[in-house]
Amino acid sequence: MHVLILGAAGMIGRKLTARLIADGHLAGGAVERLTLADVVLPPQPAGDAGRIESVVTDLAVPGGAERLVEGQPDVIFHLAAVVSGEAETEFQKGYRVNLDGTRALFEAVRAAHTVSSYQPRLVFTSSIAVYGAPLPNPIPEDFHETPLTSYGTQKAIGELLLADYSRRGFLDGIGIRLPTICIRPGRPNKAASGFFSSILREPLIGQEAVLPVPETVRHWHASPRSAVEFLVRAAELDGREVGPRRTLSMPGLSATVGEQIDALRRVAGERAVRLIRREPDESIMRIVDTWAPALEATRAVRLGFAAESSFDEIIRVHIEDELGGSL
Amino acid sequence: MHVLILGAAGMIGRKLTARLIADGHLAGGAVERLTLADVVLPPQPAGDAGRIESVVTDLAVPGGAERLVEGQPDVIFHLAAVVSGEAETEFQKGYRVNLDGTRALFEAVRAAHTVSSYQPRLVFTSSIAVYGAPLPNPIPEDFHETPLTSYGTQKAIGELLLADYSRRGFLDGIGIRLPTICIRPGRPNKAASGFFSSILREPLIGQEAVLPVPETVRHWHASPRSAVEFLVRAAELDGREVGPRRTLSMPGLSATVGEQIDALRRVAGERAVRLIRREPDESIMRIVDTWAPALEATRAVRLGFAAESSFDEIIRVHIEDELGGSL
Repeated sequence: MHVLILGAAGMIGRKLTARLIADGHLAGGAVERLTLADVVLPPQPAGDAGRIESVVTDLAVPGGAERLVEGQPDVIFHLAAVVSGEAETEFQKGYRVNLDGTRALFEAVRAAHTVSSYQPRLVFTSSIAVYGAPLPNPIPEDFHETPLTSYGTQKAIGELLLADYSRRGFLDGIGIRLPTICIRPGRPNKAASGFFSSILREPLIGQEAVLPVPETVRHWHASPRSAVEFLVRAAELDGREVGPRRTLSMPGLSATVGEQIDALRRVAGERAVRLIRREPDESIMRIVDTWAPALEATRAVRLGFAAESSFDEIIRVHIEDELGGSL
Repeated sequence: MHVLILGAAGMIGRKLTARLIADGHLAGGAVERLTLADVVLPPQPAGDAGRIESVVTDLAVPGGAERLVEGQPDVIFHLAAVVSGEAETEFQKGYRVNLDGTRALFEAVRAAHTVSSYQPRLVFTSSIAVYGAPLPNPIPEDFHETPLTSYGTQKAIGELLLADYSRRGFLDGIGIRLPTICIRPGRPNKAASGFFSSILREPLIGQEAVLPVPETVRHWHASPRSAVEFLVRAAELDGREVGPRRTLSMPGLSATVGEQIDALRRVAGERAVRLIRREPDESIMRIVDTWAPALEATRAVRLGFAAESSFDEIIRVHIEDELGGSL
């Protein structure tokens, strides 16, 4: 089996790569070949030079998608995207990568399908950003997608294209609408959502973190480990069980910031909690106010997807996967 | 005021043209200039050569949209589309016209906006085809769009782009989700929906018509006159009253085929009804089964949109507008 990961240099892409190498198989087949693609060269995992190839590519450049599809990968993970904040400030870049790039990929697969009845499983990562306020809590699975960002618009269009190309038989697509990934490893960043991870990640290693919103803010979370598990599960699914509505809302954990902090206290003590500095920020509050507090994920749960059920668990996953297993 | 109609050679385009010429004004301003554009030359209305220009154009051809937007029309009606059946059989053509063409138009407006803060009212016609079975009756306004045709997919993408370009201030868009237009003037055609019009239109002039589905089939209708009224109203609306969800489900009349026939009997007598020949067609039945029986249109009604309230009225509109006022 040949697996292609687009966006392999990103946080989720790297974790998915590690998982596939560790497992050695996917959807019942041995992973004999793994192509890692991104706009920057994805890190080449050690000791697997024979079956792993890292390539630099831009899907939206003519010929870019065709070259990737040439090797007819059996499973394509399409994680590549310009993120929310950048798609908002760089209007053209967001549409070029998130819409034109995605469409170029689908078109390259369709072209290959036309000559050889090629029909790969294509796993597309969508986002809760497809929903725009005012939002019910939880958001029903049949709720309309009225995004309030260009990123959300591009993801919603990707979902529509995925369903149409799947319905026509050009590819076998599964979209997964990811919760906010928490705890994101790495350094603090300027993303409006950054604090959800930061208020746990920094105190766990004895550093200060800034909380710009009240503790009552409720949001929808899953760990990076769950995100990788969702991707693997999406690659394995029987498409016939999914039906024509090809994108699934992933399960997650609906929690308030206060509940995040309570979990931090239980896992790491009051000293860690004291490292959270309250610094209210009206502009972040306004953005966060428009976000989803929770999603119904009945279909996905029925199909075997599962997320964490407490923030204690999300913190433990972070300690295991990022901090060597202990504080 | 300069008005541009894209798709001006089509049935609705020609009726809208006639209406604007008859009114002489739109959204509180005199119509001083009218540009009629289509892939075939729109008929040039008599006696108005000075202020009306007909042009042949293809939005999806480089430069096509830019040339149309050059004259900075104050109101743009974007009715141009490859229809449902053709978008299904001609995959690439459907995407080229319905998606690339629409995006080229929006991009041309954005480019003009960037240099001159140009921001036209852009009225985009969407369709009930954005919804895909299984469907509730009526379809709530916050129901998700999961089209089961490429045409519906392209219209749903158009709605998303319209909202995002409006949110960014590049244009001032209003989308209207039209019911099936009944009674469509003209000759019988091969469209799966053709019989809804045919079973009234042909008997009204003493000709036979074929009914391929049972009388219990329920669907969502509005007259061509209502469709033109929707477009005019959409051009007049205060965008601030619409908010960020820029596409509105238009009101319509939910009626069964049996109710259509009852109205025909009341208006034209039993002799007309006897001209309807039952010829069940499983393939048409399967398609029609996936269509919307009715939509909630609370927002549109609150904003002043209205459709017919009986099929007697829809038939009378046809007699007035197409048959010279009497049978």
